[in-house]
Amino acid sequence: MAVTTDQKTQIEQWHELAQQLRVDSLRCSTEAGSGHPTSSMSAADLMAVLMSKYLRYDFNNPENPGNDHLIFSKGHASPLLYSMFKAAGAITDEELMTFRKFGSRLQGHPTPAIPWVDVATGSLGQGLPIAIGIALSGKYLEKLPYRVWVLCGDSEMAEGSMWEAFQHAGYYKLDNLIAIVDVNRLGQRGETMLGWNLDGYAERAKAFGWHVIEIDGHNLEEIDRAYEEAIQVTGQPTVILARTHKGRGVSFLEDKEGWHGKPIDKDSLPKAIEELGGERNITIEVPKPDPVEAPSRGENKPLELPKYEVGDSVATRGAYGDALKALGAARGDVVALDGEVSNSTYSERFAKAYPDRFFEMYIAEQQMVAAAIGLGVRKWVPFASTFAAFLTRAYDFIRMGAISRANIRLCGSHAGVSIGEDGPSQMGLEDIAMMRAVHGSTVLYPCDANQTAQLVAAMADQNGISFLRTTREKTPVIYSSDEEFKIGGSKVVKQSSNDVATVVAAGITVHEAIKAYEELQKEGVSIRIVDAYSVKPIDVATLIESLQATGGKLVIAEDHWPEGGLGEAVLSALADSGQVSLSDIKVKHLAVRDMPGSGKPQELLDAAGISAKHIANAVRELSK
Amino acid sequence: MAVTTDQKTQIEQWHELAQQLRVDSLRCSTEAGSGHPTSSMSAADLMAVLMSKYLRYDFNNPENPGNDHLIFSKGHASPLLYSMFKAAGAITDEELMTFRKFGSRLQGHPTPAIPWVDVATGSLGQGLPIAIGIALSGKYLEKLPYRVWVLCGDSEMAEGSMWEAFQHAGYYKLDNLIAIVDVNRLGQRGETMLGWNLDGYAERAKAFGWHVIEIDGHNLEEIDRAYEEAIQVTGQPTVILARTHKGRGVSFLEDKEGWHGKPIDKDSLPKAIEELGGERNITIEVPKPDPVEAPSRGENKPLELPKYEVGDSVATRGAYGDALKALGAARGDVVALDGEVSNSTYSERFAKAYPDRFFEMYIAEQQMVAAAIGLGVRKWVPFASTFAAFLTRAYDFIRMGAISRANIRLCGSHAGVSIGEDGPSQMGLEDIAMMRAVHGSTVLYPCDANQTAQLVAAMADQNGISFLRTTREKTPVIYSSDEEFKIGGSKVVKQSSNDVATVVAAGITVHEAIKAYEELQKEGVSIRIVDAYSVKPIDVATLIESLQATGGKLVIAEDHWPEGGLGEAVLSALADSGQVSLSDIKVKHLAVRDMPGSGKPQELLDAAGISAKHIANAVRELSK
Repeated sequence: MAVTTDQKTQIEQWHELAQQLRVDSLRCSTEAGSGHPTSSMSAADLMAVLMSKYLRYDFNNPENPGNDHLIFSKGHASPLLYSMFKAAGAITDEELMTFRKFGSRLQGHPTPAIPWVDVATGSLGQGLPIAIGIALSGKYLEKLPYRVWVLCGDSEMAEGSMWEAFQHAGYYKLDNLIAIVDVNRLGQRGETMLGWNLDGYAERAKAFGWHVIEIDGHNLEEIDRAYEEAIQVTGQPTVILARTHKGRGVSFLEDKEGWHGKPIDKDSLPKAIEELGGERNITIEVPKPDPVEAPSRGENKPLELPKYEVGDSVATRGAYGDALKALGAARGDVVALDGEVSNSTYSERFAKAYPDRFFEMYIAEQQMVAAAIGLGVRKWVPFASTFAAFLTRAYDFIRMGAISRANIRLCGSHAGVSIGEDGPSQMGLEDIAMMRAVHGSTVLYPCDANQTAQLVAAMADQNGISFLRTTREKTPVIYSSDEEFKIGGSKVVKQSSNDVATVVAAGITVHEAIKAYEELQKEGVSIRIVDAYSVKPIDVATLIESLQATGGKLVIAEDHWPEGGLGEAVLSALADSGQVSLSDIKVKHLAVRDMPGSGKPQELLDAAGISAKHIANAVRELSK
Repeated sequence: MAVTTDQKTQIEQWHELAQQLRVDSLRCSTEAGSGHPTSSMSAADLMAVLMSKYLRYDFNNPENPGNDHLIFSKGHASPLLYSMFKAAGAITDEELMTFRKFGSRLQGHPTPAIPWVDVATGSLGQGLPIAIGIALSGKYLEKLPYRVWVLCGDSEMAEGSMWEAFQHAGYYKLDNLIAIVDVNRLGQRGETMLGWNLDGYAERAKAFGWHVIEIDGHNLEEIDRAYEEAIQVTGQPTVILARTHKGRGVSFLEDKEGWHGKPIDKDSLPKAIEELGGERNITIEVPKPDPVEAPSRGENKPLELPKYEVGDSVATRGAYGDALKALGAARGDVVALDGEVSNSTYSERFAKAYPDRFFEMYIAEQQMVAAAIGLGVRKWVPFASTFAAFLTRAYDFIRMGAISRANIRLCGSHAGVSIGEDGPSQMGLEDIAMMRAVHGSTVLYPCDANQTAQLVAAMADQNGISFLRTTREKTPVIYSSDEEFKIGGSKVVKQSSNDVATVVAAGITVHEAIKAYEELQKEGVSIRIVDAYSVKPIDVATLIESLQATGGKLVIAEDHWPEGGLGEAVLSALADSGQVSLSDIKVKHLAVRDMPGSGKPQELLDAAGISAKHIANAVRELSK
């Protein structure tokens, strides 16, 4: 193809910009004494062309609904991203040099502490799956023309989550999504599985329904043509496979092993900069998006939560489905996702009523959580559900979601041994521990349908990552529909002036505690029952008050392993309170301590030692 | 192709067996009142031919080293598996009818409570990745001719972990692995992404380097030919994509929606059995493997652990690498895996010394843990390492590993905020919570190189899932190399007769506690420091003794979120001990409570409130 003078000038400009991005990546990482300059240098040409011509982004208004999204799935290339911010005039060189320093928003890996960063990356294989959520919103919900650009590393192509993303993007025909894979051949400790075998990646991507473009990632014309082609593609996502050199442009770094995640020392820096043509101070105008208006999500209507009659038998998972549907009616911004078990979690009740706001994520829990995070980036209020046990599959995404400051709601059904015959593989027994240990999380475990409904409503307004644990079995409705349940609260279910012990329970064990209460009443013994439905934050004031009223005798019963669950939440809260010295508190902690098998729910509750009779026995022993 | 009389007879026999498997799958699930008969019926023809002609398995000796392995990755098809056990004469019809009943080993999903089951399945997308580990052992370590057969569901093909497995099997050219995908089109709540689009699966599998055979999964001749072809393939794994009908053979079940995970009722059972040609009582002789001898793994040699000088600075992650290498020298059964970060975890020290016993799993943590479990099935002693933060990616596999009774050792490096500049995405801050909440797990967090070495050695002999948490930074060696450290133990690092408080620390905070001790000594204040390196099981006796000697004043300092970590382990142990009533215990729990950023290790320890000065302040406040 003939190249005109204008094109030559443009290419020269792109080259200069790319070299600046390389120099700045080196400078800031050398200044920091750590970081990943070589992984940045391989992608500098790709990003120089992107930001000069194709990315449509208003740095003065990151909330502009027309803005493209740019996600560095290879988050360790943060020096490149931050150097782009400098080149776009968004940060100063002085700020760039604060890279990785204490207090700087330019952290080792990008986080939304920076206004132009949508989500935290740095755990590989997450940026692309999250981008699916953003692209789903653009194509199906907002119907806005923004594109989602994702810079991926080649090492992260080994993560199964990347193939979940390829699969879902293909399935959902996300033609607003363009992945750019920086195939620099070298992983952290040597060559990747495929090295520079671009065809290998190409076959895989095609098999998952993607349009594929293979290029030399240092040939600026090829890059330009690839983007031009990519933005024309309809009906399928595009991946640009770019053959690149790690450390490109510096003789002692380029395509050399042993340079992953290492800055060059201060003495070598001038030589490297010289090889790259010296320092530059180019500022470019990143194209702004055409003005668009964000579509309305409708006025909020009054929320009409389902109401259940006291004494009826209703599974809390069913109440989740009902409440989610009610939320869907009241609020246009509520969306839902499920991992192909919506007829078990009952999210299908939402899905059937609001199919346009429901995304079937099939059995791909990582992608489900990632898509929820991506939908959250676009200010939707996502609820994602599967069995509590299977949320363990997505733990890295949930953990990273906290760093992303994501506002997402998770529902894990089929908690504990009380699911019965399906056996331990299907039992959530570590989910409370897992979810409590997420920064800023909320952990809710209702025992009753009316309580569940109110908590689902509260989750919609809750920031951070919130988790609702539901039960498979039908359980009695014990609260009237006009009782209030707030995050951070608890309910004293039974109390009298002569209670001999406090029983703290949640979910299924509340019902066991009530049965124990009735059993003990026959012996003339009264107990106080605290329904600690808000496991995090926990209502420590009520716990203290109850303990003080019951001589410090405490029974905790939970359908969960003993580690990290309700029991430890209670102990920790008491210890942290500073209000009690734990004086004279005697504790019996009933939890699942042996590996369960199959059986009827009640058989398994009995076998685990968390049923009514065990609660009653624990009270008897404590009050001896 | 002409079919001879003998072939006709054989095919008729296979058909009869397949119908029996269907009938028995229905009978046992109807008796149980739950289970997955329709998912069993789709694969009955596939399994009838396999067990009659191709599977080589000695049911009288499941330890026979020549036995093939058969893994039901679609574990919910357990009625089919158990019906096969009956047809093989391994269990009685009476036992089959105990399916899903309390106390029966025939649980809802298969577990190794059954001697012919290698691993627990039931969380989809795990059987195939685990099979990779078994196949790696057969091909590269044991060099035995056994084959690994895996029955996969089509719904689970949506899991990224399946594509990690496809990728690794292709990369490692596992021609002893044959996956059979039962493409019955219907997932739990409707059609799968690809439905009966076998070509779609075929393209994907080919792109990952597999030999692909597409068949009608109810045509017994095609099934036979497919297996015949599969066992001839060399240099690559084979997948048989079988188009099947869920509920095959019963008019009101076949290819019908709404029948996932549901038994038919007792009234409908006779009609279904009649359609399937009635009950049969066929017992078949499963072919036995040719006699082979398991290769020797060598005599154990004396273990010569690395020794470090007190006062030297050594990172515990480095000591892990050294000790693993020493173990490799002493024991021929120790193998190692890493998630492409071996130069950070230092498992590369083993890899370089024993490359034949090291498997690079690239950035695919699910596959890494799964392969470790598979290697454990073959009685290797696997150690798998990556950053502690990234083990969250494999949590579902770890959880299921406990149900599999797997003996695996995990090492998570780069724990806590003390990693410094890389920022929160790389910091393990929930790993202790996650690993404690695994049934039967061991959680170790050493502070010193000599201690690390001894604990690594102890892990080799530890059953269940053990986890070692290591630190990025170099820390002073504080223990002489002849001190002993046992799982379940602790060390009192500082003590006197007038200690005002007990400080419980582990890993990096032990060093902060020692600095606090020195600071407080200047004020004439003495503290007792307990190094709780064994977080689970924890040395509760020493904790109680120390608390009793220090007036119940307790400071806990940990580089972890407050939930589920060392602090809660200590509180839980004290509460459970029954030996103390927690009387007069006053606690200050120092943990990471705000989201960290980047910075120098000491800056981040200070900012998190877990450094020496905060420990000293906590002691001062408690002893006011």
